[in-house]
Amino acid sequence: MALDLSSMASESVGMLNTSDHTSVVSMNLFVALLCACILLGHLLEESRWMNESITALAIGLCTGIVILLTTKGKSSHLLVFSEDLFFIYLLPPIIFNAGFQVKKKQFFRNFMTIMMFGAIGTLISFATISLGAMHFFLKFSIGDLNIGDYLALGAIFSATDSVCTLQVLNQDETPLLYSLVFGEGVVNDATSVVLFNAIQSFDLSHINTSTVMQFIGNFLYLFATSTMLGVVAGLLSAYVIRKLYFGRHSTDREVALMILMAYLSYMLAELFYLSAILTVFFCGIVMSHYTWHNVTESSRVTTKHAFATLSFVAEIFIFLYVGMDALDIDKWRFVSDSPGKSLAVSSILLGLVMVGRAAFVFPLSFLSNLTKKSPQDKIHLKQQVTIWWAGLMRGAVSMALAYNQFTRSGHTDLRANAYMITSTITVVLFSTVVFGLMTKPLVRILLPTSKHFASMTSSEPSSPKSFIVPLLTNGQDSEANIRSADIPRPTSLRMLLSTPSHTVHHYWRKFDNAFMRPVFGGRGFVPFVPGSPVEQNGHQWN
Amino acid sequence: MALDLSSMASESVGMLNTSDHTSVVSMNLFVALLCACILLGHLLEESRWMNESITALAIGLCTGIVILLTTKGKSSHLLVFSEDLFFIYLLPPIIFNAGFQVKKKQFFRNFMTIMMFGAIGTLISFATISLGAMHFFLKFSIGDLNIGDYLALGAIFSATDSVCTLQVLNQDETPLLYSLVFGEGVVNDATSVVLFNAIQSFDLSHINTSTVMQFIGNFLYLFATSTMLGVVAGLLSAYVIRKLYFGRHSTDREVALMILMAYLSYMLAELFYLSAILTVFFCGIVMSHYTWHNVTESSRVTTKHAFATLSFVAEIFIFLYVGMDALDIDKWRFVSDSPGKSLAVSSILLGLVMVGRAAFVFPLSFLSNLTKKSPQDKIHLKQQVTIWWAGLMRGAVSMALAYNQFTRSGHTDLRANAYMITSTITVVLFSTVVFGLMTKPLVRILLPTSKHFASMTSSEPSSPKSFIVPLLTNGQDSEANIRSADIPRPTSLRMLLSTPSHTVHHYWRKFDNAFMRPVFGGRGFVPFVPGSPVEQNGHQWN
Repeated sequence: MALDLSSMASESVGMLNTSDHTSVVSMNLFVALLCACILLGHLLEESRWMNESITALAIGLCTGIVILLTTKGKSSHLLVFSEDLFFIYLLPPIIFNAGFQVKKKQFFRNFMTIMMFGAIGTLISFATISLGAMHFFLKFSIGDLNIGDYLALGAIFSATDSVCTLQVLNQDETPLLYSLVFGEGVVNDATSVVLFNAIQSFDLSHINTSTVMQFIGNFLYLFATSTMLGVVAGLLSAYVIRKLYFGRHSTDREVALMILMAYLSYMLAELFYLSAILTVFFCGIVMSHYTWHNVTESSRVTTKHAFATLSFVAEIFIFLYVGMDALDIDKWRFVSDSPGKSLAVSSILLGLVMVGRAAFVFPLSFLSNLTKKSPQDKIHLKQQVTIWWAGLMRGAVSMALAYNQFTRSGHTDLRANAYMITSTITVVLFSTVVFGLMTKPLVRILLPTSKHFASMTSSEPSSPKSFIVPLLTNGQDSEANIRSADIPRPTSLRMLLSTPSHTVHHYWRKFDNAFMRPVFGGRGFVPFVPGSPVEQNGHQWN
Repeated sequence: MALDLSSMASESVGMLNTSDHTSVVSMNLFVALLCACILLGHLLEESRWMNESITALAIGLCTGIVILLTTKGKSSHLLVFSEDLFFIYLLPPIIFNAGFQVKKKQFFRNFMTIMMFGAIGTLISFATISLGAMHFFLKFSIGDLNIGDYLALGAIFSATDSVCTLQVLNQDETPLLYSLVFGEGVVNDATSVVLFNAIQSFDLSHINTSTVMQFIGNFLYLFATSTMLGVVAGLLSAYVIRKLYFGRHSTDREVALMILMAYLSYMLAELFYLSAILTVFFCGIVMSHYTWHNVTESSRVTTKHAFATLSFVAEIFIFLYVGMDALDIDKWRFVSDSPGKSLAVSSILLGLVMVGRAAFVFPLSFLSNLTKKSPQDKIHLKQQVTIWWAGLMRGAVSMALAYNQFTRSGHTDLRANAYMITSTITVVLFSTVVFGLMTKPLVRILLPTSKHFASMTSSEPSSPKSFIVPLLTNGQDSEANIRSADIPRPTSLRMLLSTPSHTVHHYWRKFDNAFMRPVFGGRGFVPFVPGSPVEQNGHQWN
């Protein structure tokens, strides 16, 4: 316990002693750069090409170059990528916010497709990249890589960057694609981490049926328990806040409790070796469905924007960090004598990433289309290309896994390991910048009528606010939706019966209204309290 | 730069490798305890005696005992107090929020009294405690203490706990006392830190007039530059947000920029060896006066509650932490053979704290009363007692300074140093718990008609919303205030002329309206933007 609390800030600060003034300088620089990223991102908002990730990455790279030049190439250890900083502090708010703000209707409607893409797809991608790397790298003399390293490479480059996806695709313009690609990203994260852990712990020399079965069982157990933990944490927060009714005393307590409970769910998942990403994602979904409706109006505004802001800052932080870290000179020293070989390794890995993703997106889309009856629900070829493209970016998860596998406390001792680290950086930078720059225009070319397309694929052409909406949307619609929900509309009812997933939603909604909401709160099930309603929130925070 | 970013989370986490699982366990425990503190604090809200600080301190102590018992006394390094964690992460949000939410009218009206208490009072207290400690401790054989140590003791025990004051006094019930005690606390923090730095850097063997003059000059320079930095950072944020109008695109950007700019001001002050506490306090004041009015309605709600929540969690964190840290067994080992002597040292220090505070509160109040003409503005004896009492608590600042002076990286090597550390812990615990428990009842006994008293001392008996209010209040009043401000009321006008400080306010307001607000925004100077006004905020966050 001494470690985590004291080492979080183990450097000294100028206020008291001046021994470690450089760390204060660097923190100033970093915070100032974050401000600059936000300002530049705002000014480039209208740009066709740029997004906030690329801006941050570019600023990070420029800063890295400046530092490298001012310190005359000695800044090798100025910034070391810390996987703990990433996994403990930066990733939780991003994934929680994604769960909190995700359009639940789209997510659950496409649940089976998302699971297929995220689990089976990642396995296909993993196998393709591992086998491809084994096939190609044996021809190069880049040093010792054992079978575990090749399998780890597969896991590392199967982890798509869900953060970048959030920035590139627009939830309102292309809801189906967004939910598919982002949902896949969340499940994919879990699968990659499970795969990676399995590779590190299983005896790889004896792969047989029982190992495979054990692996599948492990994955299913992990998925189920992680989800359950997140749901339980969310429901607990809803119940506690509803029963004790915090808002009576303090908005701050409600907000603090929501944040702490969400973080606790993440850390508990870490404690039990579960997939913390899945846990906090589902915790976010449950909190937005129940807890969010139990708090006061000002808490609702605060949580909605505070979570989004936290996530936003964490995202920029990551990209800035990856950009600055990329120029760490120690990593490049090993490979500087043969830049051509390093480039070849990176190109091969990039190619494998593209092939590996193509190897599951198109076949699985075909399979998914077979189960859908109406042509509107099917994933068309242009959409398939977009899904394939949007998931090509590799990000901080890949970096963290690569550092974990190929370094010991940030140092790259072996020649082969240095190649792998630099190649990972190259692939992450190239895919984020080049693919990221091209995604916005590509989506515009492939899906020119994206708004029309969105409303078409969401299968609610006739009534934009059908009665399924209040069940699964984020709960930000006005209360008028509830009233309209009580009046069954023929178009929606017909649609409900036409597809089985809608029937599941129907029964879930019945169950939700009969058992869940009376206990855990939620829209329409929170008693009227003076001072709390929407009409009065202009004076609520006085 | 490698240090601050990687060492922030230098321990590993279960997701990837399981080598340091204990740190995950301890983080879980800590987050769970934070939740428990919030829940218990809520349930004890109605209690006459308890407040959130004492609840957190008690829970921390109990946890410390449990850890001590389960590890059978081996948990000596389970929790080490980190002054960096405190100064870099926990203190900034607390002080910033204090500036953001402080009633500016009260603060600036009593500015001279606050400065006198904070600067001269702290010096008196410092001298009393230093001389007293020198006088008494020479009789005990507690080891080597040089003159620097005695002076450091004076600085350490002159630092009042502004965090605890915030919890004990109520801004709405006793605004004058709150602004005096809290304002003094902020200036006092700065003075203590300046004193402490001066003691560590000046040549103490040759104290003469020029050293004293140098010290006074240093203090004035520090106060002026720190304040300026905070004001400039606040104005810059107001200008940037007003000019670029972030809300057009994103609420998250506005909120993120406000938080980052405030934190940047704190870190810049650290960078230039200024008083970061003063800087971030004035940055909070300026931000609430200008920036807060330039952002969208939903950003206003979010910032107001997000800052309060951050501050709230940081406060609980500190008290929980101090409570858990108090039982660190290593510190007590040195003094366990002579518990009587340790108790005597603690008692002497506690007595000196009380005497040192009495030595400036009553004389300075007398001086302050001489300058006031109307009896309503004077500080009465009962109020003086309350001011004396409310500032007796010692907290995390004292702990941090004591650790800085008497330990090397958390270890207490010398016998005398061990005595000083354990005595500091004892004084902090005793003053927080015992004095803290007694403050609420004491305030009720001494100031039974506190509400009546508050309105009397604020010298606005006739019109609760006089035209000075919009100038200096926190800006949360309705827009109607501005309109009423344009109509001079005879009672207010007469009062304005009767006291000089009101005249200063008058000219400041004229200047503010003519030059500052047109440039930096502020209430009534932000153009109407569709989607932004109060009336529409029910739909703003859709």
